[in-house]
Amino acid sequence: MKIYFSGSIRGGQQDTNLYAELIQELKQYGTVLTEHIGSKTIDTTISDKEIHDRDVKWVKESDIVIAEVTVPSLGVGYEIGRAIDMNKPIICLYRVLNGKTTSAMIRGCSDLQCFEYSNVAEAKEILKKQLKTT
Amino acid sequence: MKIYFSGSIRGGQQDTNLYAELIQELKQYGTVLTEHIGSKTIDTTISDKEIHDRDVKWVKESDIVIAEVTVPSLGVGYEIGRAIDMNKPIICLYRVLNGKTTSAMIRGCSDLQCFEYSNVAEAKEILKKQLKTT
Repeated sequence: MKIYFSGSIRGGQQDTNLYAELIQELKQYGTVLTEHIGSKTIDTTISDKEIHDRDVKWVKESDIVIAEVTVPSLGVGYEIGRAIDMNKPIICLYRVLNGKTTSAMIRGCSDLQCFEYSNVAEAKEILKKQLKTT
Repeated sequence: MKIYFSGSIRGGQQDTNLYAELIQELKQYGTVLTEHIGSKTIDTTISDKEIHDRDVKWVKESDIVIAEVTVPSLGVGYEIGRAIDMNKPIICLYRVLNGKTTSAMIRGCSDLQCFEYSNVAEAKEILKKQLKTT
């Protein structure tokens, strides 16, 4: 199974360590195409167009998209929007921070599954349950 | 002409006054379907699903999508992603704040037009030029 993991990059990298942990967990279920999302280093050697075209190609190739949607991000939202039109299964995970939940456009979308969690162990449980039945 | 204007809501409302000014400007070119984006009041009487379904319907109905993409936002990214698959013309406007530019997924997407600006007058000039030729 090819997994496209999506998380905020330029929108904010406060969750990079969490992404890395989730990616590590996801590797037991398949190949994670976007392992760089869990790295604090942004590759500046490739152009925006190359990043865009590579990522859209990966979404197309993937069997499932898993997005961490706690931190607002144009890129993550964009990828989810594109993935919906490609009929990909999509799982979104988010934490409630300072009383703020994730976007209405994500929570209100019936073409994806959205789960709230409060710690990594809980996120892993959700992934286990969902990926075993996919 | 029906215009879908997109801007950050839950991702951060620091730009609401700017959105309101851009929406006011856009009204001379057509009907702005999303005038509420320029309001500081979030409507809490409708559900996330109602918001999502209404907004996707409006994107479908629109002749053009204009997005202010300075503030990271899942909803704005999502709408742009969906609009691309609907083959809508899309104009994105952004300011560089604290040396940070907008998402690579937006700037690197060849299916939309992305413009940097530094003040409202400049944004109005870009809209004038683009909308007169649309």
